Amino acid sequence: MDTPTVQPGTTRIDFVMSTIRGRIAGRSLTPGARLPSVRALAASLRVSVSTVVEAYARLVAEGAIASRPGSGFFVAAQLAPMTLSPTGAPADRGIDPLWISRQALEADDDDCKPGCGWLPSSWLPQDSLRKALRSVSRAPVNDIAQYGPPLGLLPMRQLIGRRLGERGVEATPQQIMLTESGTQAIDLICRLLLEPGDTVMLDDPCYFNFQALLRAHRIRVVSVPMTPTGPDVAAFAAVAERERPRLYITNSGVHNPTGAMLSAATALRILRIVDQHGMVVVEDDIFADFEHVPAPRLAGFDGLNRVLQIGSFSKTLSASVRCGFIAARADWIDGLVDLKIATTFGAARLNEAVVHLALSDGTYRRHVQSVRDRLERQRHDVAEKLQAMGIEPWMETRAGMFLWSRLPQGADSSEWARAALRRGLVLAPGNAFSVTQTAGNYMRFNVAQMDGGSFSLIESLLT
Amino acid sequence: MDTPTVQPGTTRIDFVMSTIRGRIAGRSLTPGARLPSVRALAASLRVSVSTVVEAYARLVAEGAIASRPGSGFFVAAQLAPMTLSPTGAPADRGIDPLWISRQALEADDDDCKPGCGWLPSSWLPQDSLRKALRSVSRAPVNDIAQYGPPLGLLPMRQLIGRRLGERGVEATPQQIMLTESGTQAIDLICRLLLEPGDTVMLDDPCYFNFQALLRAHRIRVVSVPMTPTGPDVAAFAAVAERERPRLYITNSGVHNPTGAMLSAATALRILRIVDQHGMVVVEDDIFADFEHVPAPRLAGFDGLNRVLQIGSFSKTLSASVRCGFIAARADWIDGLVDLKIATTFGAARLNEAVVHLALSDGTYRRHVQSVRDRLERQRHDVAEKLQAMGIEPWMETRAGMFLWSRLPQGADSSEWARAALRRGLVLAPGNAFSVTQTAGNYMRFNVAQMDGGSFSLIESLLT
Repeated sequence: MDTPTVQPGTTRIDFVMSTIRGRIAGRSLTPGARLPSVRALAASLRVSVSTVVEAYARLVAEGAIASRPGSGFFVAAQLAPMTLSPTGAPADRGIDPLWISRQALEADDDDCKPGCGWLPSSWLPQDSLRKALRSVSRAPVNDIAQYGPPLGLLPMRQLIGRRLGERGVEATPQQIMLTESGTQAIDLICRLLLEPGDTVMLDDPCYFNFQALLRAHRIRVVSVPMTPTGPDVAAFAAVAERERPRLYITNSGVHNPTGAMLSAATALRILRIVDQHGMVVVEDDIFADFEHVPAPRLAGFDGLNRVLQIGSFSKTLSASVRCGFIAARADWIDGLVDLKIATTFGAARLNEAVVHLALSDGTYRRHVQSVRDRLERQRHDVAEKLQAMGIEPWMETRAGMFLWSRLPQGADSSEWARAALRRGLVLAPGNAFSVTQTAGNYMRFNVAQMDGGSFSLIESLLT
Repeated sequence: MDTPTVQPGTTRIDFVMSTIRGRIAGRSLTPGARLPSVRALAASLRVSVSTVVEAYARLVAEGAIASRPGSGFFVAAQLAPMTLSPTGAPADRGIDPLWISRQALEADDDDCKPGCGWLPSSWLPQDSLRKALRSVSRAPVNDIAQYGPPLGLLPMRQLIGRRLGERGVEATPQQIMLTESGTQAIDLICRLLLEPGDTVMLDDPCYFNFQALLRAHRIRVVSVPMTPTGPDVAAFAAVAERERPRLYITNSGVHNPTGAMLSAATALRILRIVDQHGMVVVEDDIFADFEHVPAPRLAGFDGLNRVLQIGSFSKTLSASVRCGFIAARADWIDGLVDLKIATTFGAARLNEAVVHLALSDGTYRRHVQSVRDRLERQRHDVAEKLQAMGIEPWMETRAGMFLWSRLPQGADSSEWARAALRRGLVLAPGNAFSVTQTAGNYMRFNVAQMDGGSFSLIESLLT
């Protein structure tokens, strides 16, 4: 055994403590291992027994070691908190799947955020929201004071059922459970259908938070390349065959970040492969209200057998009033209710009531129609301006707020994002969306969040 | 190999399908196993090749088997959804940790529910809630339309910090993260600090949903007996020593279901054991506002080092407006923010704003004072009436809505609960709270939910 000696300026107790810490750090003492007896260590380090006793006592207080009465001292089992960021704390972290979320959510409301995934307040139906809040302030006391039913308020589930029907997805109110957000909806589905170590297939590129969420579930991720009409079918078949994923998570309507829309032909071929391999699909339909003409839905063709659909109202109504939903097989809904109670207990009754009032307000349809038109104009404008700067949209998107665009040869979108952030602007660099990290030359632009400042910043990054 | 034969009244195809299904059910064919080749099975079952082809095709469509081009047919990996109820669907399920939650949450708002864990609407500050909703309807548009900051609205975190200070828990706003509920707060902590298979210590008895939540995390549960001044210290030391739990989850202020309140002596001895074994404590302080004089808090003595505290406002303000919080070490808060974004994305900004307005309303303190007094009177009344029926409160509780009570010799509280449910009344039988299932003779009564009907029902159950 090495016999270090006391360094000048440190006490003997510090010396003993740092020796033990060093052995733990160097794994010559592993968690659970018994430490040398007080006498043995005192002898080998040439210090007094009382010095070692005091050092061990302080290490116990630190939680570095533990004493078991009668059987000496042991290295404490170290608690290793779950970390979703492979690249450290947000301050110094790299562009990981949570980078954009944290930058965008932590920025001020009114900062222009071309990298964020939502609309500015001026695009949202502020008057119907205020009206809904005023009427809920007069609602029966139970609506504002008591827990709600685990499935969610019935009128809201009925309304969602009608909306789904318009997109070809048949669901009874018993097949619909309300959640506190679209993200929580997917989280609950993962809890129901996945086990740690399972494999899930994502699109490449896909919404970055799918990767963060699956990391929280200790899930292995594989991916399929995206095309303008949905996932690449041949690649999908090969990955399903080779990797045996339990679940496939995607957006059919308006795909994030690409703006792709699923074609009927692709939908049917994907569903055949899904059936063949006994896979399950989560269809995230969060951008549904942006479509002029609804794209085919996997959930519709499948009849909610192997496909679950989720949605929310954060994009066209309010992100402050949290309310999402899951439409799925009744037997799965029942398991989801148990999981929802176990992990959040109550339903978000107030939010459900407010969203129901706002959506029932006759003005909502007109509102989304005008948002669609306004987004269409913005997509054309922004696409032109970007092209003039040598930035090429990947496809001509027919709906939504995103332009997934290729930067000029050699430009690194992560470097752009870091530079922009130093100037207070949040961008959405391609590799945050890419499971295979092959989108370093791409950027997702939110056309509703692009102002003069954004363009002049991009100008400056080009040079 | 056995060679069954076609039963009269079934087609050859059905016969082949049921033969294969039988082998899968009987595990002679396990998930992933290759099925006999079409020719081999045709020969062994004495049917035509085309019969087997059609049977395999139908089994593929069912998802029972999968075909891998070029390499034949395999038994599909069966998806086994997570179930939190060891006893089946809610209809026929036994008294498991989710039984009371589902019965109470699915019952009508105004049914009297002596088994539920909340106050009737008439006890809640309906006017300040309505006032808060009216003022939020006039709030800046971002408050009602946009995502909130991941930590939660600052004024609300500052208010919580001041409230914690009054109970001896020092926490800066940076050490406080808002959540969508107290339950979600514990769920996020489990995600941060636990791995599947870890061991967690609970009180016996304890709030039943702790068990359901930990089952959702695939956690092994051990327990320590409860005393009127906190957990049994000797048992706590022995279990910590023997089982090495990572976490201990408890209520210090008003314990659910017993009404026990932690003593300073117990708190200090528990914290010494916790330090010695490098354990972490989650202190669920959800009933804080019910105490006349705050009991000692583990989080206060520990200084938020190894103890995290959680809370919410569901019990004294509103269960419909979802808002909870976690107070913890800053480095843990940072990991919790990542997990919150990954699993729910946005903060419950509207709810945070409403709760902040209602708590800042000068009338809140008077409201909780009157609730405390009213509960005290109810506890005395109900205790007397129960004692008159031979039902003995386990201790004289000093705060809160619960009376944990021993039924007369031989009475089975689960049987009582089932009988009561047939008459539309939800009771809370002891074993739903008991990790060791040793509380079959106990019942938790919510004194705020006991009316004449409840007493006459109990009368009838006694005879």
